[in-house]
Amino acid sequence: MLGRTYERENCSAARALELVGERWSLLILRDAMFRGARRFTEFERSLGIASNVLASRLELFIENGLMEIRRAPDGAEVREYVLTPKGLDLEPVIHALSAWGDKWAAPDGAPILYEHSRCDGAVHLDLRCETCGDSVEPGEIVAVPGPGLQRA
Amino acid sequence: MLGRTYERENCSAARALELVGERWSLLILRDAMFRGARRFTEFERSLGIASNVLASRLELFIENGLMEIRRAPDGAEVREYVLTPKGLDLEPVIHALSAWGDKWAAPDGAPILYEHSRCDGAVHLDLRCETCGDSVEPGEIVAVPGPGLQRA
Repeated sequence: MLGRTYERENCSAARALELVGERWSLLILRDAMFRGARRFTEFERSLGIASNVLASRLELFIENGLMEIRRAPDGAEVREYVLTPKGLDLEPVIHALSAWGDKWAAPDGAPILYEHSRCDGAVHLDLRCETCGDSVEPGEIVAVPGPGLQRA
Repeated sequence: MLGRTYERENCSAARALELVGERWSLLILRDAMFRGARRFTEFERSLGIASNVLASRLELFIENGLMEIRRAPDGAEVREYVLTPKGLDLEPVIHALSAWGDKWAAPDGAPILYEHSRCDGAVHLDLRCETCGDSVEPGEIVAVPGPGLQRA
């Protein structure tokens, strides 16, 4: 059994993956972000995912504040799982995965396009240097210790 | 047993997750990108990962062209696992996860900073609209069908 946490790691990517690194997690969030899924049955149908797996992922999201439960606005006795700002902030992760897949694993072209809701323009993910202002290419980035680095 | 593929999905994020969505995968790539890890023992030591898991992840990366095997430059009889451009292109995924973790899961500040190798400036990940030029906030993105969308 592989655990869910990366205890030895003092790394923000590892911390993020503890919450969204399990199978289906990011696709559940994607459906909440981009397909309007809110109800258990909507996620289940959209993903074809086993209900016990879906339930455990949603529970983890609720526990860690990525989603919150709301009563359906039509008053029905059904719970809705709604992204919080913390969950919504994972959008760039979905976007980065999609951009990579579009480039390297979509021979027929991008299956999904991401557009800016205010003007329908294409949304592009960019790594940019705050000092020189240049767009930064993969391989031009170095990791250095930050203020939160504490070694066990 | 949860399979590795998302067969029902015609989505580039899902395609990417088939290659990098398993436990440890993205942290192995991170170590190759930012910690200079190349040898099996370097990944093993850095991550504290079981050798059979590491071997299976590296094999998948080689099979799918994210890494290639090189003979060590010092002529030693040891294989080195080196990122290809396809593997290196996953850098924004690591970066997006880190940025999220820095914001939401790093109360003592970012443990790692990412700098531009050419000028030491901070590298910032940005979602930007190609039409209006604005920075795009989470929640302002809509997904629309693209040219590669084929329904089974």
